[in-house]
Amino acid sequence: MELIGENRAFGGRHLRYTHKAETTQCDMTFAIFLPPFASKDKPVPVLYWLSGLTCTDQNFMQKAGAMKLAAELGMAIVAPDTSPRGEGVPDDEEGAYDFGLGAGFYVNATQSPWNTHYNMYSYIVDELPALIENEFPVTKERAISGHSMGGHGALVIGMRNPNKFVSVSAFSPIANPCDCPWGRKALGRYLGDDKEAWKEYDASLLLASKTHNIPLLVEQGTKDEFLHEQLKPQALVHAAQQSETQLTLNMHEGYDHSYFFIASFIEEHLEFHAGHMGLI
Amino acid sequence: MELIGENRAFGGRHLRYTHKAETTQCDMTFAIFLPPFASKDKPVPVLYWLSGLTCTDQNFMQKAGAMKLAAELGMAIVAPDTSPRGEGVPDDEEGAYDFGLGAGFYVNATQSPWNTHYNMYSYIVDELPALIENEFPVTKERAISGHSMGGHGALVIGMRNPNKFVSVSAFSPIANPCDCPWGRKALGRYLGDDKEAWKEYDASLLLASKTHNIPLLVEQGTKDEFLHEQLKPQALVHAAQQSETQLTLNMHEGYDHSYFFIASFIEEHLEFHAGHMGLI
Repeated sequence: MELIGENRAFGGRHLRYTHKAETTQCDMTFAIFLPPFASKDKPVPVLYWLSGLTCTDQNFMQKAGAMKLAAELGMAIVAPDTSPRGEGVPDDEEGAYDFGLGAGFYVNATQSPWNTHYNMYSYIVDELPALIENEFPVTKERAISGHSMGGHGALVIGMRNPNKFVSVSAFSPIANPCDCPWGRKALGRYLGDDKEAWKEYDASLLLASKTHNIPLLVEQGTKDEFLHEQLKPQALVHAAQQSETQLTLNMHEGYDHSYFFIASFIEEHLEFHAGHMGLI
Repeated sequence: MELIGENRAFGGRHLRYTHKAETTQCDMTFAIFLPPFASKDKPVPVLYWLSGLTCTDQNFMQKAGAMKLAAELGMAIVAPDTSPRGEGVPDDEEGAYDFGLGAGFYVNATQSPWNTHYNMYSYIVDELPALIENEFPVTKERAISGHSMGGHGALVIGMRNPNKFVSVSAFSPIANPCDCPWGRKALGRYLGDDKEAWKEYDASLLLASKTHNIPLLVEQGTKDEFLHEQLKPQALVHAAQQSETQLTLNMHEGYDHSYFFIASFIEEHLEFHAGHMGLI
């Protein structure tokens, strides 16, 4: 693991590392915010943040305005990259923003040539938390959140791994990827034509399939330019009704898909997760 | 004036505009944050934020984390661009980051070919506030702040125009540009070899020249990579002693030159300005 950046922030530290990842067979970059006073004697719980299409480990750290409250609460935040990268990692042939580099969709690909490197699901569920918990003064209390493609990732990973995450939240998630252009393109190419395989990566289908006990919180702006074609949060509401699962979806009048929206409500999500982590 | 971007944020609005500027003879872009409930009946005071080398109107808006408290205080924030831009605006011959585009240094250039467009001093002091006060629900209460090159700009503009600004603050300012490489390069090319002309744009020389009554607040990180060669905040301290001017310089152990530093302390600056604006 190699330190590639370090900034003091809100009395804590913002650090960037690269490390050789087994799951994705390449060097992966992640950022971590450690609140003040985090130490082996006083380890802190971790919120994992999954970013959206085109993002890196830095978008959330630089734009979300999350560090102030995380510092006060005593919560670490880990922001991984959104795909494998580097020499030998295949990209969309036309460099599309919605597939390949910057668009791993948090799945384990089964189709060639994607299946060697595009295993972001296992990277986020297993490899990264194991590394974080080995290297930093953190507990095994984990929560997960994300935006857009990362909101999809957070919902899917949280619902499939309630033993690993205490709570899950999302901003503007791709709520029903089996039924939108971004999702059909990505799942079709990473997982192949058999739509049975897609179901394990569709938050609405997972939510409908059984009652989930993991706390679920979703924010969505009404002026989000992707709301009707790509995001479809109502699919989550219907699925939650079907499975009798508790889900909070907050619609916000006039807000769009940008980090200005995330920044406006991130503190409510930190408090939601802090409550389930026992911090407040 | 043309609206080129709009986001809802913290119950208020983040807007971007371009307009034809007389002082700089080109289209200028700026961003404005309007807090909730700002209206003609309830106009709000304005903090002008001047950004540093290479920045645009967006760095502060996206990374400083200032909107939450500005929304609560009822303060507008205006972030102009850092230089003239566009077709016909000359740039450094080698595209250097520290001169020309993105590096206007908030001066009125006197030397050809810079003097046609590079008149950022007049743009910030006169033209932009006049436009803002004509177009938006704001009062004539103004404060000014900035970072690095913009910290230099804020200090110079604030001290030279205490009738126009109620308070001035800076993060990591270029405190004594007559005596550092960035400053000598920029002032030498924009203003010519006669160093008498430079003095009007040197915060430390202006501060030493007479007692100033405008409130002055400066933050500086001790691990700032530009501290010793370019920034030299001690020059401000000596100048303030010489002129018996009140100056607060806060040194912060371990902080660097990045927006993580600005974000960590921006709320203290908003409160400082809000106090002088009569908001708190």
